[in-house]
Amino acid sequence: MRRFANDLPETAAIGTVGVARWEKYSLGDLLPFQAMWYTVPPGGSPPQDCHPEVELSIVISGTATVEVKGKIADVPAGSAFLLDSREAHIVHNRSRDIPLMVFSAYWMPR
Amino acid sequence: MRRFANDLPETAAIGTVGVARWEKYSLGDLLPFQAMWYTVPPGGSPPQDCHPEVELSIVISGTATVEVKGKIADVPAGSAFLLDSREAHIVHNRSRDIPLMVFSAYWMPR
Repeated sequence: MRRFANDLPETAAIGTVGVARWEKYSLGDLLPFQAMWYTVPPGGSPPQDCHPEVELSIVISGTATVEVKGKIADVPAGSAFLLDSREAHIVHNRSRDIPLMVFSAYWMPR
Repeated sequence: MRRFANDLPETAAIGTVGVARWEKYSLGDLLPFQAMWYTVPPGGSPPQDCHPEVELSIVISGTATVEVKGKIADVPAGSAFLLDSREAHIVHNRSRDIPLMVFSAYWMPR
């Protein structure tokens, strides 16, 4: 059994978003996907993201306000959201005080 | 974008453990793994589990106390643990009042 602590000291920043990619764990091809944790600070609105990978996100804490094609949907802690390949998205944190923390798995579509 | 609420009304029970498998979402082969949410009530100690699939678990709330070969490790909310194929494990919830909620992805090793 291996544990992976959500250890932000090793986190890289993309704008105000903290990103901890799982490549650092050197798991090789044990996982059939790539993975990361990321945090969006209270009030944060990162730039729109769009990539060929399908992405499944699990909200760990806070609420993700996900914007796709101008439509907004809230995803609370304990819930998940799935983005298709090349589905442009923005993950906002509209809270004034609670950081948003997300676990994401992403992979190229088959 | 699709949202998946951690909706326990649709949960099946295995002993005292609530399990919501993602097969119900009919995602076909969009995900390169199978997935479930499960909850262990305060004080809960499910039977030992052992299966051929590799399993990655993200702790959503509470603390998972993971027992493998008699060794115990705590995994707090926001952290993850990875079990190898056929690695027998018990996921305890030693809290007196906080339910343990876990998201798990599992797949056959390559």
